[in-house]
Amino acid sequence: MAPAVKEKSEHKISSFQGNKYSKELKLLALNPIDLSKPGVLTPERIANCCAEACGYSLLYGTEKINDDVLSNLKSLAEEQRVFQKMEQMQDGEVVNFIEHTSSENRKALHTATRDFFDSPRSAKNAKEAASEALKEINKLKTFLANIEKENSFDEMVMIGIGGSDLGPRAHYYALEYLLKPGRKIHFISNVDPDDAASVFKHVNLKRTLVVVISKSGTTLETETNEEIARAKFEAENLNPHSHFISITMPNTPMDNKHRYRETFYVWDWIGGRYSTTSMVGGVVLSFAFGFDVFWELLRGAHDMDKTCFQQDLFTNLPLLAALIEVWNHNFLHYPTTAIIPYSQPLHRFPAHLQQVGMESNGKMIDKKGVLTDFETGAIWWGEPGTNGQHSFFQLLHQGTSVIPVCFIGYKESQLGEDLLVQGTFSQEKLLANMFAQSLGLALGNQTDNLNKFTPGNRPSHILLANRLTPYSLGALLSFWENKVDFIGFIWDINSFDQEGVQLGKVLANKIINQLACKHQGTQDKASYPLGEAYLKHLDRL
Amino acid sequence: MAPAVKEKSEHKISSFQGNKYSKELKLLALNPIDLSKPGVLTPERIANCCAEACGYSLLYGTEKINDDVLSNLKSLAEEQRVFQKMEQMQDGEVVNFIEHTSSENRKALHTATRDFFDSPRSAKNAKEAASEALKEINKLKTFLANIEKENSFDEMVMIGIGGSDLGPRAHYYALEYLLKPGRKIHFISNVDPDDAASVFKHVNLKRTLVVVISKSGTTLETETNEEIARAKFEAENLNPHSHFISITMPNTPMDNKHRYRETFYVWDWIGGRYSTTSMVGGVVLSFAFGFDVFWELLRGAHDMDKTCFQQDLFTNLPLLAALIEVWNHNFLHYPTTAIIPYSQPLHRFPAHLQQVGMESNGKMIDKKGVLTDFETGAIWWGEPGTNGQHSFFQLLHQGTSVIPVCFIGYKESQLGEDLLVQGTFSQEKLLANMFAQSLGLALGNQTDNLNKFTPGNRPSHILLANRLTPYSLGALLSFWENKVDFIGFIWDINSFDQEGVQLGKVLANKIINQLACKHQGTQDKASYPLGEAYLKHLDRL
Repeated sequence: MAPAVKEKSEHKISSFQGNKYSKELKLLALNPIDLSKPGVLTPERIANCCAEACGYSLLYGTEKINDDVLSNLKSLAEEQRVFQKMEQMQDGEVVNFIEHTSSENRKALHTATRDFFDSPRSAKNAKEAASEALKEINKLKTFLANIEKENSFDEMVMIGIGGSDLGPRAHYYALEYLLKPGRKIHFISNVDPDDAASVFKHVNLKRTLVVVISKSGTTLETETNEEIARAKFEAENLNPHSHFISITMPNTPMDNKHRYRETFYVWDWIGGRYSTTSMVGGVVLSFAFGFDVFWELLRGAHDMDKTCFQQDLFTNLPLLAALIEVWNHNFLHYPTTAIIPYSQPLHRFPAHLQQVGMESNGKMIDKKGVLTDFETGAIWWGEPGTNGQHSFFQLLHQGTSVIPVCFIGYKESQLGEDLLVQGTFSQEKLLANMFAQSLGLALGNQTDNLNKFTPGNRPSHILLANRLTPYSLGALLSFWENKVDFIGFIWDINSFDQEGVQLGKVLANKIINQLACKHQGTQDKASYPLGEAYLKHLDRL
Repeated sequence: MAPAVKEKSEHKISSFQGNKYSKELKLLALNPIDLSKPGVLTPERIANCCAEACGYSLLYGTEKINDDVLSNLKSLAEEQRVFQKMEQMQDGEVVNFIEHTSSENRKALHTATRDFFDSPRSAKNAKEAASEALKEINKLKTFLANIEKENSFDEMVMIGIGGSDLGPRAHYYALEYLLKPGRKIHFISNVDPDDAASVFKHVNLKRTLVVVISKSGTTLETETNEEIARAKFEAENLNPHSHFISITMPNTPMDNKHRYRETFYVWDWIGGRYSTTSMVGGVVLSFAFGFDVFWELLRGAHDMDKTCFQQDLFTNLPLLAALIEVWNHNFLHYPTTAIIPYSQPLHRFPAHLQQVGMESNGKMIDKKGVLTDFETGAIWWGEPGTNGQHSFFQLLHQGTSVIPVCFIGYKESQLGEDLLVQGTFSQEKLLANMFAQSLGLALGNQTDNLNKFTPGNRPSHILLANRLTPYSLGALLSFWENKVDFIGFIWDINSFDQEGVQLGKVLANKIINQLACKHQGTQDKASYPLGEAYLKHLDRL
C-alpha cells in the first residue's frame, strides 16, 4: 500500500475541491433550506421548480436547493468545463484516459450510435463513428428482412453479461408491450449453470436465433454459456452456424464467419454499459419489436444528447440532475441515491442504471492520476413504486440514513387497460402515490407521538413524462448516460474505464486453474493457498 | 419539529451507546485489523473463521474482525439481553411495542408458523399460535387434495404487495426448478395498471386460481388489482367465486365466504415481511411445487430458528451475522450492505431481504420511545453474482465508499446440467469467482499504477451450503429473519412495526380524493394545494 498512501498524503488538492464555488457550496451546505419548515414547500415552489426537455419535466421543488445553491452549482460545473468536455466526448476526442499512467486512451462515442437525426455532430471522429454505426444498422435491416422472408425464427436467446445484458434486458422489459405476436425473447447472463439450463427448458431450438455478445470476444461467462448453447443445438442435430450470430469488436475471436451466420460490430469507443443504442441493444430490440421501434428509441436518445449543450439549466435535464446529485452527495454527504420508477415496465431499469452510474463513477483517482480527496460515485439502487412503499420506504421515512430519491413517472399507462375502482383509475392512484411520497419525504410528520414522527426534509425529485414509449425510453436512457458523464466531468474523473474489475478476474483464474488441474489429475504449478483454503471448505460440505 | 428536537437534545443515552462494550468497540474500531497487510489474511484464517449450522458455513475470515472484537460484540449482545429477547419473541410475549406511546402491542410469532418439528416451544402463546398455523396447513392440504381431484386448475395468479408479494415471489423463483409439469404461476403487485394487464395477456382464466393476499383486507393496490381481475373473469362469463381465494386476518373484509371459495388465515402476530412461512407463502409454493416442498422449507426454517438459542457463536449463525453487521455499520460506519447471491435462482432474494431488513430496522426511536443517538438500519441492496461483477463491482473495488458484502453460494447447482468448458464446470467457475471476489476486496492490489490500484481491506463474508433446496432455502430465510431481529434486539428497537409508511398513505389518499372529485365533477371539500400543484404538471403534458 506504501506508494498509494504516500501519494494521498502529498497530492495537491484536486480541482473539484479547490474550486471556489465548491468552497461556497460547502458553506451553503451548513444551512440548506429545510423542506419541513412551514412556508418552504409551497404550491408555487412545486409549480416553478421545473425544467423540461424531450417531453420530460424534471420537478425538483422537493430538493434542498434554492437559487443561490443552483447558481453556485452551475458555476462549479462551468469552472469544471463541463460543456467543453461534453463537446469533446460527443465530438470523438480521446476522453477515456488518465494522465501520466497507462490507461485505455479511447474515445467515448456512444452518442454517435444515434447521431442520425437533426444537426449531427460535424467533427470528423464523430461523423466517422456515426457512419460506421449506420453501416451496422443497415446490415441489421437487411438481416431482419431476410429472416422475416425465410420465416425461420420466432425465438431469440441472448447471451451476454454486464453491459451486454443489463441495458438490452431492461429496455426489452420496458417495451415488452410492443412484442411482435409469436416472438419470444430469453436472456442468459450468469455463469451459474442453472441460468442457461432453466432457459433452455423452454426454447424451441429449431426456431431460435442465439445472439452472443462480448465486446472483447473473450468474456468467461459468455464463452461458457455459448458452449452450453452450442452443445444443445448439436444434441438436436441442428447446425449452430445457422442459428448463432455474434456482436463483438472487429477481429476478436467472435468475429468469425465460420462460427456465426452473421456478426455485428461494436468498437472500442463504446463502453459496454453505454452500448444499449449500438447493435448490443439493436439486434434484440429490433427482433422483438421491429426495427422502427429501435429507430424511435435512437431518436429519443439523440434528442436528449442534444440538450446537453444547452447553457440554460431549465432545458438541460442531464446537467441539472447531475448538479442535484453532486449537491446531495458531495455537499450534503448522502452516500446513496434510490431510483424508484413508478412504472412496472421499468422494473429492471434501476439494475441497468446501477452499472451505468456505479461502474462509470466508482473511481478513486481523477484524470490527472491523483487520488481524489472527496467522495465519488454514490451507491445507486432501487425498485419500482408503489411496490417499494410496501418494502423499504419505512427506512426512507423513519430511518437514520437520508436517502435522496429520483422518482420516474408517466401520465398514461402503456397498455391503456384500466378500471375505475373507488372513483379513480389505477394510473391515477399510481401517480398520486408518487407525488405523495415526494411530499411526505419533504414535509415529514411533526407529531408528539415519536413512534409516528417522521422528520421530513428528505430530498427527492421527479422525472415526469406523458407515456413510456420507444422515444421517451430513448430519451430517458440518454438522460441517465449523460447525467453520469456530467457528474464525472464535474469531478474530473474518467467515467469510461473499469480497471477495478481486473483484480477479481486474475484471482478467479488462479482458482479456476487449480480446479482444472484437479480434473486433469495434474499438480497446479502456481499454487494459491488462499484459494485452496476456500476449496477445502467445499470439500467439507 | 419542536417536540422531537427537544426530546433528542434532552434524552438519556440509550443502552446501546451507553453499554461498556460499545465503548470498548469504539476504541477497537479506531484501529481494526487491515486485511490488505501482509500476513493478516492467511489460509489458516480462512480455514478457522468458520461457523456452521443447518448445512451452512459462515466464512468470515475476510471481515475486519479479530477475537477481541468478536468477544466484545458477543458481550455487547449479552448485555443487550438478546437471548432473552429471542426467547420472548419465539415464546409469544408481546415484543412489538414501544413504551410510553401508542404502538401495535402485538406478539411477533412468525417462528410459530414452522414450529412443528423437534422440540417445539412449550410456552402457551407459542403453542397456541403453532396450533392455529397447523390448522391452516391442514386446511391447505385438504384444499390442494380437492383441486387435485377436480383437476380444474393449472395456473395461479397471486395478487399482493410488499410482504404479500416479495417473499413468496423470491421463494418461488428460488425453487422454480421444482415446478410441477403444466403449472404456471403469475404475480401481480403494482397498482400500475400495466402490471395486471401484461399478466392477464397470458392467462387461461378457465383453469386459473386467483389468490388475493392482504393481512388487513384493505390494501389499496391489492383491492384495486382484485377488482381488475374479477372484471376479467366476469367478461368471460366465469364466476369469480369458483376461482378466487383469499389470505387475510379473521374478520377483515376479505374474510368472506360469499366472495371467495376459500379463505386462509394469518394473524396480527405475523408481520407481512415475516409471513413467507405462513399461508402467504404456503398456498402458492404448495400449488406450484407440491405440499411436501413447502413442508421441507418449514423444516429448514425451524431448524435455523432453534440455532438462535445457541450461546456458542460458532453454531449460532444469525447472531454471528448480526454482530458482523453491527460492527460494520455502527463501529466502522459503513452505511450499506450488499447482498450478492452467487446463485441465479436467488435473483429476487435481495429484494425480499430489502424489506425484511430495512422495514424492520429502519427506525429512529428505541423501544423506550426515545430517539436513537446512533445509526440504525443499513441500506441493503444487491444483485446476483457473477452478474454484479460486470456491473457495480468496479465501485466495490475502486470507489471511495466501502461496501460490506454478504456472498451466498452453493457447491452444487440445482438442475445439475453442466458442461466442462476449458477444463472446469460452470458451477466451479461460479464458486471460484465468488471466492476470488472476497479475496480481492480484502487484499486489494498494491501497485504503483494508481489506475489499477485497489486499496483492499474491504470486508465481506460468505454463506456457503451444498445446494439450494427447499430445506436450505428455509434455513436461509430464517437466517435472515433472525439476523434482522437480533440486530433490532442489540439496538433495542422495535423491528416489528412500520409506522413510517402511514404518512405516504394519508397524503396519497388526499390526492386520490382530488382526482375522484374531478371524475365526479364535484368540488373536493378538503383542498390540497400541494397535491394540486403536482396535478397541474400532469395537465401540461
